[in-house]
Amino acid sequence: MTPADAYAELVRRSKELGVLNSCAAVLGWDQQTYMPAKGAGLRGDQMAFLAALSHQKFTDPKVGELLATVEGSDLVKSPEADAAANVREWRRAYDRATKLPEALVSEMARVTTQAQQAWEQAKRTNQFATFRPLLERVVELKRQEADAVLNCGTRSSERGVKAADKPGGPDSPSASIPNSEFRTPHLYDALIEEYEPGTTVADLKALFAGLTAQLVPLIQKFAHLPKKPDRSVLEREYPVDRQKLFAESAAIAIGYDFAAGRLDTTSHPFCSGFGPGDCRITTRYNPRSFSDAFFGVLHETGHALYEQNLPAEHFGTPLGVACSFGVHESQSRLWENQVGRGRPFWDHFFPRLRQAFPAAVGDVSPDAFYAAINDVRPSFIRVEADEATYNLHIALRFELELALLSGDLAVVDLPDAWNTRFTALFGLPVPDDTRGCLQDIHWAFGGIGYFPTYTLGNLYAAQFMAAVKSQLGVESLESDIRRGEFGRLKEWLVKNIHRNGQRYRAAELCRRVTGDSLSPAPFVAHLNEKYTALHAVC
Amino acid sequence: MTPADAYAELVRRSKELGVLNSCAAVLGWDQQTYMPAKGAGLRGDQMAFLAALSHQKFTDPKVGELLATVEGSDLVKSPEADAAANVREWRRAYDRATKLPEALVSEMARVTTQAQQAWEQAKRTNQFATFRPLLERVVELKRQEADAVLNCGTRSSERGVKAADKPGGPDSPSASIPNSEFRTPHLYDALIEEYEPGTTVADLKALFAGLTAQLVPLIQKFAHLPKKPDRSVLEREYPVDRQKLFAESAAIAIGYDFAAGRLDTTSHPFCSGFGPGDCRITTRYNPRSFSDAFFGVLHETGHALYEQNLPAEHFGTPLGVACSFGVHESQSRLWENQVGRGRPFWDHFFPRLRQAFPAAVGDVSPDAFYAAINDVRPSFIRVEADEATYNLHIALRFELELALLSGDLAVVDLPDAWNTRFTALFGLPVPDDTRGCLQDIHWAFGGIGYFPTYTLGNLYAAQFMAAVKSQLGVESLESDIRRGEFGRLKEWLVKNIHRNGQRYRAAELCRRVTGDSLSPAPFVAHLNEKYTALHAVC
Repeated sequence: MTPADAYAELVRRSKELGVLNSCAAVLGWDQQTYMPAKGAGLRGDQMAFLAALSHQKFTDPKVGELLATVEGSDLVKSPEADAAANVREWRRAYDRATKLPEALVSEMARVTTQAQQAWEQAKRTNQFATFRPLLERVVELKRQEADAVLNCGTRSSERGVKAADKPGGPDSPSASIPNSEFRTPHLYDALIEEYEPGTTVADLKALFAGLTAQLVPLIQKFAHLPKKPDRSVLEREYPVDRQKLFAESAAIAIGYDFAAGRLDTTSHPFCSGFGPGDCRITTRYNPRSFSDAFFGVLHETGHALYEQNLPAEHFGTPLGVACSFGVHESQSRLWENQVGRGRPFWDHFFPRLRQAFPAAVGDVSPDAFYAAINDVRPSFIRVEADEATYNLHIALRFELELALLSGDLAVVDLPDAWNTRFTALFGLPVPDDTRGCLQDIHWAFGGIGYFPTYTLGNLYAAQFMAAVKSQLGVESLESDIRRGEFGRLKEWLVKNIHRNGQRYRAAELCRRVTGDSLSPAPFVAHLNEKYTALHAVC
Repeated sequence: MTPADAYAELVRRSKELGVLNSCAAVLGWDQQTYMPAKGAGLRGDQMAFLAALSHQKFTDPKVGELLATVEGSDLVKSPEADAAANVREWRRAYDRATKLPEALVSEMARVTTQAQQAWEQAKRTNQFATFRPLLERVVELKRQEADAVLNCGTRSSERGVKAADKPGGPDSPSASIPNSEFRTPHLYDALIEEYEPGTTVADLKALFAGLTAQLVPLIQKFAHLPKKPDRSVLEREYPVDRQKLFAESAAIAIGYDFAAGRLDTTSHPFCSGFGPGDCRITTRYNPRSFSDAFFGVLHETGHALYEQNLPAEHFGTPLGVACSFGVHESQSRLWENQVGRGRPFWDHFFPRLRQAFPAAVGDVSPDAFYAAINDVRPSFIRVEADEATYNLHIALRFELELALLSGDLAVVDLPDAWNTRFTALFGLPVPDDTRGCLQDIHWAFGGIGYFPTYTLGNLYAAQFMAAVKSQLGVESLESDIRRGEFGRLKEWLVKNIHRNGQRYRAAELCRRVTGDSLSPAPFVAHLNEKYTALHAVC
């Protein structure tokens, strides 16, 4: 078989897998939106069937042979070639998938399903103890997963999934896992690599150290102004049907195509891109809160614009897939925060807000509203945090994940470690685990390594926005936005970010687009500028 | 491999196929309910992928080997055994699926997709000519399908899909297809067999002859009463949100489990049973019509009760699947017409109707309302027909399908044949093809042989209802219904119909449950009794 034939066959298989995986995406969306309660059992069987089929098709040894035929051929000589990017990402995913023993994959699915149920109950009843045994299993399995990826298949599958059963297993992990400081690479590298290929623990540690050092004094300064913004204006009567219309109009204004999507209601908002022509978003409405639904919709629309503008002709192949979780998050944060919490945006939308909600904001000035949506205030819940404190929530989780994975922190000690570090960072005592280490679902579904992509998203968003401003001109761009015109900004993102798919890794994309490596500087500058101006008003 | 092992493997494969096919069912439901317009292309790819995979898995020669191992073994000796019923139906479906040449299957999919688009346009513009060439292809392909099924794979695949290309092909089919009267069995037998296994053209001809002979004078008598019911009371203001609540309350009353289902809005109402715990129904609302949505919901709920009460432990195998299209339809018709257009039902629901729609029926007497929902009146559109004339619409279609398939009727002559026969049966001149031979989608999707199952459903419903009445007692049953209690009726249907899945073919099920073969007599008696009583009131 010629390299060209092998590449064509890889593309065919990859596109078929794209279609297969998109079926699971539809079922996943339905599960969150409209599935009746008693349909959960069948849905589990359907998802397991599709996942197993997808795994089986992708880890077919034939895929490895085809990859070997293309690699080293002229097809991939130029790193700019379509084939080079596709082959690079197929190889990464294929190696990862084939290194994971079947038994580990199915055990992970089983344990994380149980862990999510246990987590829900533990969070509701504020009982960490009921979640602890399952979190211990998750951490142990994630260690095994990381070990399998880093040290190749053989050794890890010998240790297999039984390691946790041996005496002194999950409860004394430091006995079998050497301290992280003595290992290169860190086990965590293998986990973050699933979400942010090419990013390492070393990169993240440097980034968080720099960021936190600047954020702590900044928050200290702006969270304790003598005159605080009045947040209560956001907690008046906002009728749900009007919230929906208002949020939809904003989503349309910034470029979401409702003929290729929908907005539904779920308890946990999300965006799901099935493939070309079908990317759906959800939100939740609270009749006594404006921010939840509105900024949620802006956020999910940001994700959706990325999905709706991926190159359809590459659907199913890496060139048709978003670059990384961090870059995906940058698109949601850019529209939610950089644009949606900005003054020019509300110069356009505030008169419309008053028209839609006269009872709630008829007596509120534009300045007071703008101050309310930008109030900096340390709080317990990550998803309710402001732009500045948000990243401290992530820094805390990153630190604890590293310690859990290295074995420096045992799961049983997690609540104490959380509370101690939280108070050190935020200056507040944690009232209970529900508002502490039990607040997020991520660890229950095995998403260790996921959290840092939220902060990466915030930093990329600020750095991309700084690049847009310098390329289009600050005045000109803000004048667009003040008139409710978002076309040039969206087109810039489509051209520079969306259309590239996975042509470049995130770090390279950032350098190409902004001329610089990722840095906390543009983000910190953005906050300083915004809050200083706001302080002058208050 | 022992017969027991082979049977276990067949069950495993069948259940896996059940899960796979249920994924397609979810996607199909989404397509009709919530899919955005631009998602159609991807959805087509998803459906084609799942259909091909399902066909490929089911026609695996290994399935044939496993079947051969079980057939003739002790496992299937008793026709009452679970294995006997499953093996009987697997064999039927396997032989049918493997007899159809791959090329014919994909050509059918391609042509019927085009035909449905052409039909929609032709119906909208009243231009039969634009649909004609595609309908000719559909009829020719259905002939080839029937021929392949009846005369085994070899000969038919030699003729292949090219037959239509030869000179004098589709336009002069009588040249290659012998007249139906000289063939045994009729090609149509192979098509009806897909919907109603075990039923033949001869059965249907006898049934329709007897039924039509009795219906024509009955309709003549009751459609021309001196005092006509006032249908306009059904076309007043019925606010949609109240229609939805009212229809839901009726669906719940007769036993639909909303924790295992939903009611959504679509332009074409349907019921889709994905599998255990998830069977969804849809309807359409017209704020100026009560009947469309309400009787539609009763109808779909009847289908859904069947699906919700199939034995979940047999999901994916024939014992977990509904008996036939005709028996399925009997369950919808039983609730829609036998119960839902009956006097006891409205003795219970009319006071509630008045409460829900005071402006529409505050001044309407129960008698006048009951007369309005049972008005007999020849009309052009099948789906709007009353209980009596409905079956003449089917008789017409059955007659024309037979003639099309045998070659006695060329597609080009269809409109004339339709109009002539329609006038003979209904006494009305057909104003246009949109209200004539273009009104239904069935032929466009290749559903030749489907229509008769609607009348079978009406007849089974009446015969089942007569059996229920004789077993539970008419007075006692009607007293239940007058009090809004449907539990005993539903339980009878669950026990006698639903729980059997495909344990018996429809004809045998009917004999077991009612003590008699299917006959038009209970249906005609039901109509005579109802309309005579109604005539006395009017």
